[in-house]
Amino acid sequence: MKISIAQFGLGPIGLETLRLAATKPWARIIGAIDIDPAKAGRDVGEVVGSTDGPWGVRVYADAATILGQEPDVVMHTTSSYLANVMDQLLLCIEAGSSVVSTCEELAYPFRKHPELSRKLDEAARKEGVAVAGVGVNPGFVMDKLLLTLSAVSQRVDSARAVRIVDASKRRLPLQKKIGAGMTVEEFRAQVEAGVIKHHGLPESIAMVADGLGIALDDISETIEPKIATSKVTTQFLTVEAGQVAGVHQIARGTRSGEEKIYMELQMYVGAPESSDTLSLSGVPDISLTVPGGTHGDVATASVAVNSIPAILDAPTGLRTARDLPLHFLAPNAQP
Amino acid sequence: MKISIAQFGLGPIGLETLRLAATKPWARIIGAIDIDPAKAGRDVGEVVGSTDGPWGVRVYADAATILGQEPDVVMHTTSSYLANVMDQLLLCIEAGSSVVSTCEELAYPFRKHPELSRKLDEAARKEGVAVAGVGVNPGFVMDKLLLTLSAVSQRVDSARAVRIVDASKRRLPLQKKIGAGMTVEEFRAQVEAGVIKHHGLPESIAMVADGLGIALDDISETIEPKIATSKVTTQFLTVEAGQVAGVHQIARGTRSGEEKIYMELQMYVGAPESSDTLSLSGVPDISLTVPGGTHGDVATASVAVNSIPAILDAPTGLRTARDLPLHFLAPNAQP
Repeated sequence: MKISIAQFGLGPIGLETLRLAATKPWARIIGAIDIDPAKAGRDVGEVVGSTDGPWGVRVYADAATILGQEPDVVMHTTSSYLANVMDQLLLCIEAGSSVVSTCEELAYPFRKHPELSRKLDEAARKEGVAVAGVGVNPGFVMDKLLLTLSAVSQRVDSARAVRIVDASKRRLPLQKKIGAGMTVEEFRAQVEAGVIKHHGLPESIAMVADGLGIALDDISETIEPKIATSKVTTQFLTVEAGQVAGVHQIARGTRSGEEKIYMELQMYVGAPESSDTLSLSGVPDISLTVPGGTHGDVATASVAVNSIPAILDAPTGLRTARDLPLHFLAPNAQP
Repeated sequence: MKISIAQFGLGPIGLETLRLAATKPWARIIGAIDIDPAKAGRDVGEVVGSTDGPWGVRVYADAATILGQEPDVVMHTTSSYLANVMDQLLLCIEAGSSVVSTCEELAYPFRKHPELSRKLDEAARKEGVAVAGVGVNPGFVMDKLLLTLSAVSQRVDSARAVRIVDASKRRLPLQKKIGAGMTVEEFRAQVEAGVIKHHGLPESIAMVADGLGIALDDISETIEPKIATSKVTTQFLTVEAGQVAGVHQIARGTRSGEEKIYMELQMYVGAPESSDTLSLSGVPDISLTVPGGTHGDVATASVAVNSIPAILDAPTGLRTARDLPLHFLAPNAQP
C-alpha cells in the first residue's frame, strides 16, 4: 500500500522535496498546490523538470481538489511564518492528512506562538493526524543532532551550535536573501523591513532548552552584516571588499542573564569552509563537527521526505523533531 | 512517582550506572545484585563509594530478593555474551521489569542470535515489558549517531565509522584487556582464546545495514595488534617499542564481495588523539567527527541511564537503539 502524498508549495524547496519523494517506491504523488499561474494546471512532472516525462497528476491553484482526495501526507513548503500558513495547515488537517512542513516557525512553535500551537495540536488530535515542522535548520543540525549527541551526557550545563555556510555555491535567491553585494545601509534597511533574516535560531534554542531541561527566561537574537574583506565573485554576482557578503546571526538563551545556549549562523559568500560545530559543556564536555556542513536545500528535502514514515507513526497532534525518530529511509523500505 | 531501579552486576560499568542513576531525582534505587562475596550483603551506597553515606538498600548475591520487589527497570551490566546472560534477562523479564543492558551482543542480536532474540522478544511481550542492549559502542557512536546523521541523506551507498581511542588514560583492566604490554605472540594467543576482543562491531554493522536498508550477505571481522613504535608509559604500565599497544579491529559488511559498511576500532595506549569519525557516501556525501572521541565508560553509563524513560515508553518486546529515542535526560525531567 503506497503512501499518497500531495505537495503544497512549489518553490525551490517544494520542487526538491517532490523530486525526492517521487524516487521512493513507497510514495504515490497525487498532485501539487501552487498559486503561481505559470505552474497551475500543468503536469507536476513537467513543473519539476522530470526526465521521466509527465507524471499524470496536476498542479492546482486551489487546495480543495487535491485535499479532497485525502492524501496520507502533505509536504508543505510555502512560508517561514506560522501565522501566514495557519489556514493552509488547518485545511490539510481537516482533510485528514498528516503534514510535514518546512515552515521554520513550526519547527518548535510553543514559545513564540503558544496559541497557534495549541490550535494546531487540538485540530490534529481531533482529526487523528500528526503535524510537524521539519528541516535541516531548524529541525536537525542545531537541535535534533545536538540533542542526540546529549545521549552520552551525564550532565549538561550549556550548549553551543555554530553553523558556517559558504553561500558562494548556493542558488541566486539565497545569495540575494542574505544581502550579498549590498551596502551596510541597504542591509540594515532590509533587516529592519524583515526581509533579511534566517528563521529558526530561537526555535532551535527553545527545542534544545526543553530537551536538555535547561530553563531559560529569555531568548534574544541579533542580525549583523558579514562584511567582505576582499572581492568575492560567485556564479551569479560580485561582492566588493567592504560590501556585505552575508548574514551573521547570533541567538542566545539566558537565565538570570547567564548564557546557557548559544547559536551562531554565518551564511555568506566567500566563507573559507562550511562547517557545523556543536558542543555540550558538562560531564563530559563533548563536541561534534560536520566538516563541509550540511547542505541546506539538499538536506531539507531529505529530512522532510525521511520524516514521512515518522509522522505517520507518531502520536496524533503537533509533534516536533525533538520526539520524532529521524533516519534515512531506504528506497526499498516499507515505512 | 519515582522509577524503581535495580542494578544487576557491580563491575566498573555497573558501579558507574548506579552512581549516575542515584543522582536523578526521578530514580529510586531499590538494591543491587552481584555474586561477588566481597559485595553481597553490604549497603549499596558503601559499595559504590557514595559520599552521602549508606543508601539503606543492599547488595544481594541472588536475584530473587530484589526482583521480587518488581523494579520498574533493571540496569543489567554483567557480560558481553548474550548466551551467558539469557537466564539473567529472563529472570528480570519474568519479574515484570523492563531491562536496559550493556551486554554488547544484545545491542543488535538478530543476526548472530536469531533464536535468543525471538525468545527474549516473546518473553518481554508476554510480560508487557521492553528490553534493550544499550551503550556507547555498540549502541551509539558507530550506529545510532550514524543513523541519525543519515536523516539528511537523499541516498546512501555505503557507510564508514572509525573510532580511535587513546587507552592511556583509561582504567587498568581496560589497558590489560586490549593487550597493552604483551608480545605479539601473547596477543594472538589471547585473541585465539577469546580474551582480547572488543565486542560489538558486527552488531553495529547489522544495525546500520538494517537502518539504511543496505542488504548484506556477509559480516566479517579481524583483530590485529597495534604495535607500539616508541615506548609508552601510562599511570599503570609501560609498553616498550615493538610490544603490543592495543587492538586494531576491523569489521566489514559486504554484498557480493563489495564492501558496503566498514567499521574500524583502534584502541591503544599512546594514540595521538582520540576521535570518532562517521561518514556516509551517497547524496550528499557527509561526515561527522567527535574530536577527542566519546569516553567509553562515562558515555556508556550516560546512555544506559538516559535510556530508562525511553525503555519504559517503548512498545513491549526486544528493542534496540535503532528505534529508541536517545537524548540526555535532565535531572529535573519527569520521564
